[in-house]
Amino acid sequence: MSLISIGTMAFDNVETPFGKAENIIGGACTYISWSASYFTQDLHIVAVVGDDFPQKELDELTARGVNLDGLQIKKGEKSFFWAGKYHSNMNMRDTLDTQLNVLADFHPVLPPDQRNADYVMLGNLTPSVQLEVINQFIERPKLVVLDTMNFWMDTAMDSLKEVLKHVDVITINDEEARQLSGEHSLVKAATVIQKMGPKYLIIKKGEHGAMLISGDEMFIAPGLPLEEVFDPTGAGDTFAGGFIGYLAMTDDISFDNMKRAIIYGSAMASFCVEKFGLEKLKELTMVQIEARAREFKRISDFNLD
Amino acid sequence: MSLISIGTMAFDNVETPFGKAENIIGGACTYISWSASYFTQDLHIVAVVGDDFPQKELDELTARGVNLDGLQIKKGEKSFFWAGKYHSNMNMRDTLDTQLNVLADFHPVLPPDQRNADYVMLGNLTPSVQLEVINQFIERPKLVVLDTMNFWMDTAMDSLKEVLKHVDVITINDEEARQLSGEHSLVKAATVIQKMGPKYLIIKKGEHGAMLISGDEMFIAPGLPLEEVFDPTGAGDTFAGGFIGYLAMTDDISFDNMKRAIIYGSAMASFCVEKFGLEKLKELTMVQIEARAREFKRISDFNLD
Repeated sequence: MSLISIGTMAFDNVETPFGKAENIIGGACTYISWSASYFTQDLHIVAVVGDDFPQKELDELTARGVNLDGLQIKKGEKSFFWAGKYHSNMNMRDTLDTQLNVLADFHPVLPPDQRNADYVMLGNLTPSVQLEVINQFIERPKLVVLDTMNFWMDTAMDSLKEVLKHVDVITINDEEARQLSGEHSLVKAATVIQKMGPKYLIIKKGEHGAMLISGDEMFIAPGLPLEEVFDPTGAGDTFAGGFIGYLAMTDDISFDNMKRAIIYGSAMASFCVEKFGLEKLKELTMVQIEARAREFKRISDFNLD
Repeated sequence: MSLISIGTMAFDNVETPFGKAENIIGGACTYISWSASYFTQDLHIVAVVGDDFPQKELDELTARGVNLDGLQIKKGEKSFFWAGKYHSNMNMRDTLDTQLNVLADFHPVLPPDQRNADYVMLGNLTPSVQLEVINQFIERPKLVVLDTMNFWMDTAMDSLKEVLKHVDVITINDEEARQLSGEHSLVKAATVIQKMGPKYLIIKKGEHGAMLISGDEMFIAPGLPLEEVFDPTGAGDTFAGGFIGYLAMTDDISFDNMKRAIIYGSAMASFCVEKFGLEKLKELTMVQIEARAREFKRISDFNLD
C-alpha cells in the first residue's frame, strides 16, 4: 500500500563520545524513508531542501524506489541544519545550533496522485505544517502516524492538539507523554492522550525499548543491548519508518501486527545507532533485518508453564 | 530447598510525592523475606536489630514460616534507621539520614544447622560483612545471590571484588553495572563483571524492567506500567526475594527457570511499590501473584510468524 513520509531533510553536525561528523545528511524524512524503503517501494516523500542538498543523496533515494515528486528544491536557498552533542550516557543531548533555512517558510504540497495515500508518516515538524498535510488528503488515510516532541508542547500546544484530532498513532518518549498528558503514570497518560485523538500511543524509551498502548491492550518491546552505540541521531525516525513501512507492506493494522511492526521498527533503530548518520541504514539486507528482529524475540521470550 | 536471607532490618522514614510515612519497618532482609515467603517456607534470616524493633513484626515473620534463629537482638541498642525522599519522577531519591546503630558492629553468625544452606541471598550490606557470611558455609551453596550498590563501589571496591569471587548472581542497576565494569555498553559491562566471579548478572532497571545476562544468553523482562507508584522503597529487595524464593521453591537454576524467577521477582516488586513500605507485601495471595506474572507475559508476548 502507498506510504507518504513528511518531514525534514537536513545537514547535521553530530558529536558523540566516539567522534564527530560534520555536514552529514540527516533529517526525519530521510531516516524514515531509508528505513521504510526496506519494506515498501510504494513510498513517497513530501519535504523541502535547498539547492545545496546533494543530488547524489536524492538519486540514492530514487534508486531505493522512493518517489520524490513531493520534494521541493528551493533555488539559492540552504537546507535545514542541525548540530547536536551527546552526553557520555548517550541518552541526553544538547542542541548546539538550529538553522531553519528553507524550513522557515515550508508549505508542503502533495502531488495530486498522492492525495489518496493509505499510510501517512508525519515526521517531527511544526504541528501547523503537519496539519496542512492532513488537510490535503481527499479522504482520511487508513493510518496516520505522527511524531512530535517536547519543543512543540512548549511552544505550540494548541496547534499540536488540533493535529492530534486527525491522527491514529502518536510516537513520543516517556517524558513527552507525561508533559502532553499532565500525568506521571504512563498508564494514566495513555488514557488522557487517547482522548485527544490518537487511538494508539507509542512511547519510545531509547535503550529501554518501546511501548504500544491502545485501550486495554499493551505491548512492551525490549531495547536490544548493543556492544556499541555510536550515534543515536535518527533512531526515533528510523523506528517510525520501520514501523509504518512494515504496516504498509503487510496492510494489517490489527494490534498483533502492530506489535510486529514495533519489533521491525526497533530492529531498524538498533542498526541505525551502530554507525554515524545514515551509514548503517544504507548497507542493510533483509536477511540482516530478519535476524535482528528474531534477536528481539530471543531476548524477551519466556514461558511460565 | 533451604534459603538464607542476610541483610538489614530497619526503621525507615519515606517521603514520596504521594505522602510521608515515619518509622515504618524496612530493610533489605525484611523485604527479601516477605517476598520469598510466598514461595518457600524453608526460609531463614541472618540479621541484627535493636530491642526497639517491634516484636509484632518478628511474630509476623515467624507466622510466615521464617526462621529467626540467626537474628541478633541487641539489648539497649537501636535498629538501623534510614530516611529518604523521592523526586517527582520516582526514579531518583535523596538519602536524608542514615543511622547505622546496631549495624555499626554487626558480625553475622549462622546457626550451625544453617551452614549447609542451598540458596543464599546476600542483601545490600558492607561487602566485608557479606564475606563473613560466605566464609561460614561448610560447602559452597548451590546458588549465592548478592545485591550491592554504588556506595560500596565508591568506598570499598577491593572488598566488593573479593566477595564477588564467591558469588553466582549479582543484582545491580544499570549505572552500577557501568561503574563496576568501567564500560558504558551493558553488553561489555556484563563480560567484565562475569570475569569478576558472578556467572549471572541481573540489571535492575526500575520502571524499565530487568535484564539477565549469562555468557551468550540474555533475557529482558519488561517493567509493568502501573496506575500509581506510591513508594519505590524496597522494590529491588522485593525483586531479589521473589527471584531467589522462586528458585529455591523450584530448585532449578537453568537459564529458562531463571527467566521465570525474574518474572516472579518483577511481579513481587510491582506489588511492593503500590503501597507504602511492606503494606502491600503483607496482604498478597498466590492467586494475585500468578495473575500478575501472567500480566508480564501478556504485555511482552509477540510472534513474528
